[in-house]
Amino acid sequence: MSENRSSTGRTVSREVRLVSRPSGPPVPENFELAETDLPAPADGEILVRNLFMSVDPYMRGRMNEGESYVPPFRIGEPLDGGALGEVVVSRAPGLSPGDVVYHGYGWREYAVLDAARARPVGETPGVPLSVHLGALGATGLTAYVGLLDIAGLKEGDVVFVSGAAGAVGSLAGQIARLKGASRVVGSAGSPEKITHLLDDLGFDAAFDYHDGAIGERLARAAPDGIDLYFDNVGGDHLRAAIGALRTYGRVAMCGAISAYNATGPVPGPDNLGLAVGKRLTLRGFIVSDHLDRMPDMVAEVGAWIREGRLVFTETVVNGLENAPMAFIDMLGGANTGKMVVRLGNRGTYRDRA
Amino acid sequence: MSENRSSTGRTVSREVRLVSRPSGPPVPENFELAETDLPAPADGEILVRNLFMSVDPYMRGRMNEGESYVPPFRIGEPLDGGALGEVVVSRAPGLSPGDVVYHGYGWREYAVLDAARARPVGETPGVPLSVHLGALGATGLTAYVGLLDIAGLKEGDVVFVSGAAGAVGSLAGQIARLKGASRVVGSAGSPEKITHLLDDLGFDAAFDYHDGAIGERLARAAPDGIDLYFDNVGGDHLRAAIGALRTYGRVAMCGAISAYNATGPVPGPDNLGLAVGKRLTLRGFIVSDHLDRMPDMVAEVGAWIREGRLVFTETVVNGLENAPMAFIDMLGGANTGKMVVRLGNRGTYRDRA
Repeated sequence: MSENRSSTGRTVSREVRLVSRPSGPPVPENFELAETDLPAPADGEILVRNLFMSVDPYMRGRMNEGESYVPPFRIGEPLDGGALGEVVVSRAPGLSPGDVVYHGYGWREYAVLDAARARPVGETPGVPLSVHLGALGATGLTAYVGLLDIAGLKEGDVVFVSGAAGAVGSLAGQIARLKGASRVVGSAGSPEKITHLLDDLGFDAAFDYHDGAIGERLARAAPDGIDLYFDNVGGDHLRAAIGALRTYGRVAMCGAISAYNATGPVPGPDNLGLAVGKRLTLRGFIVSDHLDRMPDMVAEVGAWIREGRLVFTETVVNGLENAPMAFIDMLGGANTGKMVVRLGNRGTYRDRA
Repeated sequence: MSENRSSTGRTVSREVRLVSRPSGPPVPENFELAETDLPAPADGEILVRNLFMSVDPYMRGRMNEGESYVPPFRIGEPLDGGALGEVVVSRAPGLSPGDVVYHGYGWREYAVLDAARARPVGETPGVPLSVHLGALGATGLTAYVGLLDIAGLKEGDVVFVSGAAGAVGSLAGQIARLKGASRVVGSAGSPEKITHLLDDLGFDAAFDYHDGAIGERLARAAPDGIDLYFDNVGGDHLRAAIGALRTYGRVAMCGAISAYNATGPVPGPDNLGLAVGKRLTLRGFIVSDHLDRMPDMVAEVGAWIREGRLVFTETVVNGLENAPMAFIDMLGGANTGKMVVRLGNRGTYRDRA
């Protein structure tokens, strides 16, 4: 029996709560670390000890008041989000202690949840378990669906990815290349990230968006224009892409991280009218609409990882207490690849039990 | 032999030329009316006397320097555009004097052209011949394709059309209704146009965009939001529509007349980021990509016209010399329905011959 479980079966867990809504960039004071007392799992439920949790840009939107496509986080309550946990107690058929599951109760050490809301994940030798929050999870699916289903990637396309060293962007660029793009261009926010894109991820060209006008940098990186833009950033990047897109060009609107911390409206692209003459299609999407594509993605991306053809990069922060700063830093671009928070190590619970 | 044809078979024709590029709204001084001398048609060619010509918003873009999706008009040369003419001389099989053809050589009294570039049009009793420049021509096809193929109109959709009393808008609204939209809302620029939309064209709601914030007017006209926006206007209208669109909403980007006379960049919609969470699709299109749909459109819209279920409204200006003002006034919204210029009457040429 671990130190976290009382003799009555109750579990003491720490969790991160939202205590105030950020105005502009979030600050540590918007969050608090608190203890809570979990009941023993009921029939059909499991108790899970989290090993990894995800920090994602979309969570910033949920910290604002008002309904977006997902309900806002509530003040005084724990945040949630994608996590990987090890089953500690199971009162559900098909799941046993030691199994690793993906579920939606991140930002906490332990969770009691309906087993139906947990999805068991396998392990691949040499690949960190956290891949199921990244390349083989929602992040990978976002890149895969955005490119293939939303933007209709075609062989020979010239593809531009913004936020290309980020979680989704680094996968989108690689998947584009593996799926036959003729040229893959990325933008990112530091010289180190540009080197990573060119040397590790196989981008054909990359530029630092701090180095001058994005439109000019993009024109140099893709002198004949682009066919597909995978937009993680919005703002000036979207404007530059609309300018560079060729006839019948397509934009997958995945996110607009440049605007997430804005406190008011952000200017729209002043060249959107070009969409008429160029016959452009701009399409927004949310990965949760496309979970039916998960098996296809896992099969394809999983094979590329095993074959060493796709690099899965992550930035790991240790400890639940550091999750708010990990989130804040991720919004500021401190991560390369997928940003995850490690909450515990596999098997240590059982070892102590 | 008409007074316009010399004994050598040459024809004296008047034509409207562009003499300077407009900066902002075009003015009469940008145009001149000039005489020219047409050769006799060669083998495979026809001589056509124009009866009607079209003035269309897209022509404004061609008056600017620089390539858009169609090449710019050239200084000192006649303008061109959709026209209906009567064959005067035919040196091509299949076309005879008296036949009425649609072709691309407007802005002039006579044209000599390759017969392959002329399309014979029929006449419907009670329907003006100029319908082939409007509801049964490129204008009708624009509305039809934009709604059905670009924006994927579905039964039950709430549809918003801007520029709804204009050539394309007045058809888009009616086609939406006839194709099963649950509610059709239009905006236009005068009380008379609003009355026309409600009383003549069967719109469920309509508002004058001068009467306050467009977003508020739209919210009142479509309290539960909209599913499809047919955009003829751009600017504030597009912003309001993005705000009102429901999940999976679609925008057919047909034109942005609010920007055509702008001398610099126009602000983009500052709420475009909503496209992600709402999963919106915005798609620009050009009718000339969709000429294969002309037979479907003519069959369907033609039947509605014959059955009296679709109203074809036009504003007719008389005389080639008034074509520049017709164009200028159309850009300013002086027209209701399709704006055409009448250049001559059917059969008068033959009668004089």
